[in-house]
This record gives sequence, structure tokens and C-alpha cells, in this order.
Amino acid sequence: MKKPAPPRPGGRSERVKTAVFDAVEHLIADDPGGIPSMAAIAVRAGVNPTSLYRRWGDVNILVAEVATERLVRDLPVPDTGSLHGDLTGWASNVARNLNNRKNSALLRIMTATARASRTARDLNSLPIGRRIAELEAMLARARKRGEYAPDLMDILDFVLAPIYLRVLFMGAIRDADFVGRLVDRVLSPPL
Amino acid sequence: MKKPAPPRPGGRSERVKTAVFDAVEHLIADDPGGIPSMAAIAVRAGVNPTSLYRRWGDVNILVAEVATERLVRDLPVPDTGSLHGDLTGWASNVARNLNNRKNSALLRIMTATARASRTARDLNSLPIGRRIAELEAMLARARKRGEYAPDLMDILDFVLAPIYLRVLFMGAIRDADFVGRLVDRVLSPPL
Repeated sequence: MKKPAPPRPGGRSERVKTAVFDAVEHLIADDPGGIPSMAAIAVRAGVNPTSLYRRWGDVNILVAEVATERLVRDLPVPDTGSLHGDLTGWASNVARNLNNRKNSALLRIMTATARASRTARDLNSLPIGRRIAELEAMLARARKRGEYAPDLMDILDFVLAPIYLRVLFMGAIRDADFVGRLVDRVLSPPL
Repeated sequence: MKKPAPPRPGGRSERVKTAVFDAVEHLIADDPGGIPSMAAIAVRAGVNPTSLYRRWGDVNILVAEVATERLVRDLPVPDTGSLHGDLTGWASNVARNLNNRKNSALLRIMTATARASRTARDLNSLPIGRRIAELEAMLARARKRGEYAPDLMDILDFVLAPIYLRVLFMGAIRDADFVGRLVDRVLSPPL
């Protein structure tokens, strides 16, 4: 795919972007089974399809940008004084954030369009990079306090991954105790 | 999306389907960042776009069908005499199956187009339904032998989910011991 030139800053450009991003969000929430067409996005946003192709080059690039910007926002990082409290609050935020039709559809799009990174070095540039940065902050505080703190990868594997699996393949998470059990388990030191 | 009529059985229809499915597979492996356009699929398969729309109705329906048929094939279910051996073999098969560009791209498409089920009743009709059926067979044998066997959901959460997370967001799994550690951990009875 060719990389389109960045838009010039300015009022009209920003307004078009907002209309287009809103259109994408509505279309995928209305019909979460895939990626909308450039034509449908153009109609919904009231802009010319040609200008969408000029600015984003390809519908997959456009929807990836929408998913990243609208879904992967910073979540508040809890600071409760214990890693157990911090992780429980964080995991509940992640699950709650995904527990609606719009955001689970955005996660699907993010997954479809993610270009997996092959080096550990750029973990923070992954689509889940902000989640990783939030975890690193909580783990660093726990280590400073002298608490047992598992590896970052364990939290990704045993807390974030199960939340994503359920949202992506089994619908919303309606079991209120689910994330609590994930956190309890990952914080039991290995035998 | 409207549901297209099923194709009449017959040689030509089957040949077109194979050409179209091959085209989709190649296009997503060449450029794994999203869903190819109907136009690109038509060109690559050497068929008229109109006939693609007539048969599949929508590009998302078409690619979902390709992903399910080509990726979610039955994997051999190991029967080693112990749940540890069975799960290690099974998880290694799952990881190996996804450890190439074509299949990881198909997993992405399957995730994007999955319509999450909201009832536990139809777990087997999920995109991951065959993986679940394979696990149920291994767990039933373990219980018959009197072995400790965790819940099905624990294996989905702590073995399948981490494999999917890494494939989708962090590239191929190159750590040979990774799935072994997942299995050891899920088979340690909770304290």
C-alpha cells in the first residue's frame, strides 16, 4: 500500500477527519462483521470517495487509524498502594472499555489491521503499546515497594489475553468476578 | 447484509470457488494489514466482480468463509495417555499451525469477521468451535483416567488466548518452550 501524504493542519481538514472517523465508528458498530467499504464511509461522512483515497490511500489504513485513535486511549492507571489493587482496577477498566458494541468492533478492526511487530524492542509501538506502558508503571511501583511482581509478559498472557479472547470470540464479559480471578491467579507466585 | 443464495453444486461452481478462495488467501498473505477489495479478488481469481457479489453478497462474508474453511480445520487430537502429553501436543499443533504468514493472516480475518456468540450454549458454533471440541475430547479422556483436569474455560483462557495474543499482536511464536510453560501452568492444581 502506498503511504499517503499527511494532511495539512487546519480547520477544514480536522472537520473532515472527525466526520470520517465518526462515520467509520458508526458503520462498524452497526455491522460489526468486517470492514466497511470506502464508498459507504464516504456517503455516511458526506465527503467525496476520491478525497478519502487521496488522504488515506486504502480503506484498511483508514480503519486502522480510527481503531487506534478511538480505542487505544490512555486508561487511568490506578494507584491504590498495592499491585493487587492496581491490577484489579486496571483489568476492570480494560474489560469495561471493551464491553460495548462500538469498542469491541474497534478491537476487531485493530486486530485485523495490526501489523505484528517481530522485535521485543518496539513493544511500546504495538497496538497494545499503551496497555503495556500502563502495566510497566504499576509493576515498577510494586517492585519499589518490595512486593512480588510477575513479569510483564505474564500479565499480557494471563490477564489481557483472556479478556481479549472472550471479547473477540465469546461476546461481552458479563461475569463480574472474571477479571478478579485472573488477577488473583497471576499474582500467586509460581510454586 | 443480505444472505446470498447458495451456489448450485457442480464442477464449474466448485472451480470458481477454489480460484476465489486461493485468490483471497494469496492477497491477505501478500498484504496482511486488512481485508482485500472485491475488485482485487476478482482480478486475481480471473472472475467477474459481479459474480462475486452475486454469490457472496459482501467481501466480509467472503473472507470470513475463506478464513473459517482454510484455517479452522480439524487438527489431530493427540492421545498420549496423559493430559499433559495431550495438551502439550495439541498446543504445539495450534501454535505451529499459526506460525506462518498465511495462517496468521487468516486468524486476523477470522477475528475481524467473527460474530461473537452471546450464549454459552453454542460454544461449538464459535469460530474456535473445533478447538473446543478437540479440548473436550482430551479432557473427557483425562477424567476417565482419574487425572486432574482443569475446566475447559481455563485452557481457553490460559493456553489458547496467550497463543492468539502473541500471534495477533507480537508476531510468530519463536520460543520453543512457550507452549510447554503454558500447559505446565494450567495443569498445576490451584492452591
